[in-house]
Amino acid sequence: MLIVGELINSSRKAIKEAIENYDAETIKDVAKAQADGGADYIDINCGTFVQDEEKRSRFLIDTVREVTDLPLCLDSPDPKVLEAGLMAAGGQKQPMINSITWEKERFAAILPLVLQYKAKIIALCMGDGGIPQTASERVEIAKQLVAALTDAGVAEDDIYLDPLVQPVSSADNAGIQTLDTISGIKNIFPDVHCICGLSNISFGLPNRKLLNRIFLVQAMSRGMDAYILNPTDVDLMGTLYASNALLGRDRFCGKYLKAHRKGLYEKK
Amino acid sequence: MLIVGELINSSRKAIKEAIENYDAETIKDVAKAQADGGADYIDINCGTFVQDEEKRSRFLIDTVREVTDLPLCLDSPDPKVLEAGLMAAGGQKQPMINSITWEKERFAAILPLVLQYKAKIIALCMGDGGIPQTASERVEIAKQLVAALTDAGVAEDDIYLDPLVQPVSSADNAGIQTLDTISGIKNIFPDVHCICGLSNISFGLPNRKLLNRIFLVQAMSRGMDAYILNPTDVDLMGTLYASNALLGRDRFCGKYLKAHRKGLYEKK
Repeated sequence: MLIVGELINSSRKAIKEAIENYDAETIKDVAKAQADGGADYIDINCGTFVQDEEKRSRFLIDTVREVTDLPLCLDSPDPKVLEAGLMAAGGQKQPMINSITWEKERFAAILPLVLQYKAKIIALCMGDGGIPQTASERVEIAKQLVAALTDAGVAEDDIYLDPLVQPVSSADNAGIQTLDTISGIKNIFPDVHCICGLSNISFGLPNRKLLNRIFLVQAMSRGMDAYILNPTDVDLMGTLYASNALLGRDRFCGKYLKAHRKGLYEKK
Repeated sequence: MLIVGELINSSRKAIKEAIENYDAETIKDVAKAQADGGADYIDINCGTFVQDEEKRSRFLIDTVREVTDLPLCLDSPDPKVLEAGLMAAGGQKQPMINSITWEKERFAAILPLVLQYKAKIIALCMGDGGIPQTASERVEIAKQLVAALTDAGVAEDDIYLDPLVQPVSSADNAGIQTLDTISGIKNIFPDVHCICGLSNISFGLPNRKLLNRIFLVQAMSRGMDAYILNPTDVDLMGTLYASNALLGRDRFCGKYLKAHRKGLYEKK
């Protein structure tokens, strides 16, 4: 199980303001809270700062590294920003890149960074035709991504396929397509990981946090083993520990019991 | 989705006392609450009254039928008690029998009742050797049960296989064996239903209700489509509606939205 803390993202209002003002204390607090909550990686995304993303990203990386030695997940569509970030984060534990796709141009631009920095890589199951609607089409793209990445020398254990999540409010079968994509991938590549963000699933519906938690459980029961989420959300983390225990991935339910003792998922 | 309300069971203290005292009002209240909560069937179990189970069962059936026309799920290991109950409940909608197994003697004793009363039947995936530990052994028993039942004339749509739930506290892989049994059954018999009670999974662990809810979601994502549960538990029912919507089994998320408007799963 691998958890990428998602909170340092400039699409969130408080983070956007902190980045604008070079407010290091806010960023440090959020980084620490995510580390304390159980994050394995800290995502760094300032994609809304189109003009000077590289400079803002550098500020975030330097600030986060002051308070935690957790490795970073560098999150940008721009290979130049990623490369600058990977250099700035140099010497840390194995970094993660978010993300590559099967779009020809993007694949060609990101792959050299994955190899040079021996990074873990999040690979979205989409190509030049956009997001495929069916699970079988996404699994086909997954096969091409895994083949191309492993041919280039990336270990299966460093590949995190994102089956893509779309809102169930826009199509009744949106959730099941994602779940079937996970099953399809895990049947073919048991050693490749699956990762996704959750919140897209509940877009447009009430009580989104409940839906996000339940979709996490559904995805886990199909084999999802990595998550981009808010590790400071105790209900969500409690769900994750409980789900893990029920799936037999927590020896003697040890982590579940520890989380319980820490009050991690007690109702407030 | 089919919900069997589990509350009228003499192993519960309040129900035991109500049965002892022929306290019809308590039984009526519990029956009504389950009907209001969304039950499709009302389970009737007074198995702890070994001496006069038939008489006590008759009291429960007559009492419940005064307040709801929901069909009954007659729950006893004793064919005589079941038969008396089926007669007492005569003329109602299709009854359900809880349960048959692949134990030779029990199968032979219960099958004629299933046929005579055209009942839905809950069939436990166990035989004369007790509860098999592995999913593949349980699926083998499921195949024999479905073959014998359909050969005798029972429709696949009337069969509810119980994959059996054992505590994850006693074996890390207890949950996954159940889940893999569901997948195995649904792969072979897409038209046969799967049903189970949930609470066994969490025996011996803290925060059991959370674990039960999460196991419900895991089981649903494998194809479970019927549940023996407490329909007055709003958190559990909210989880069920949300899970159903995410799995695309709720057109335009209609039931989820209706449940939300009724406050069915609001945190208190």
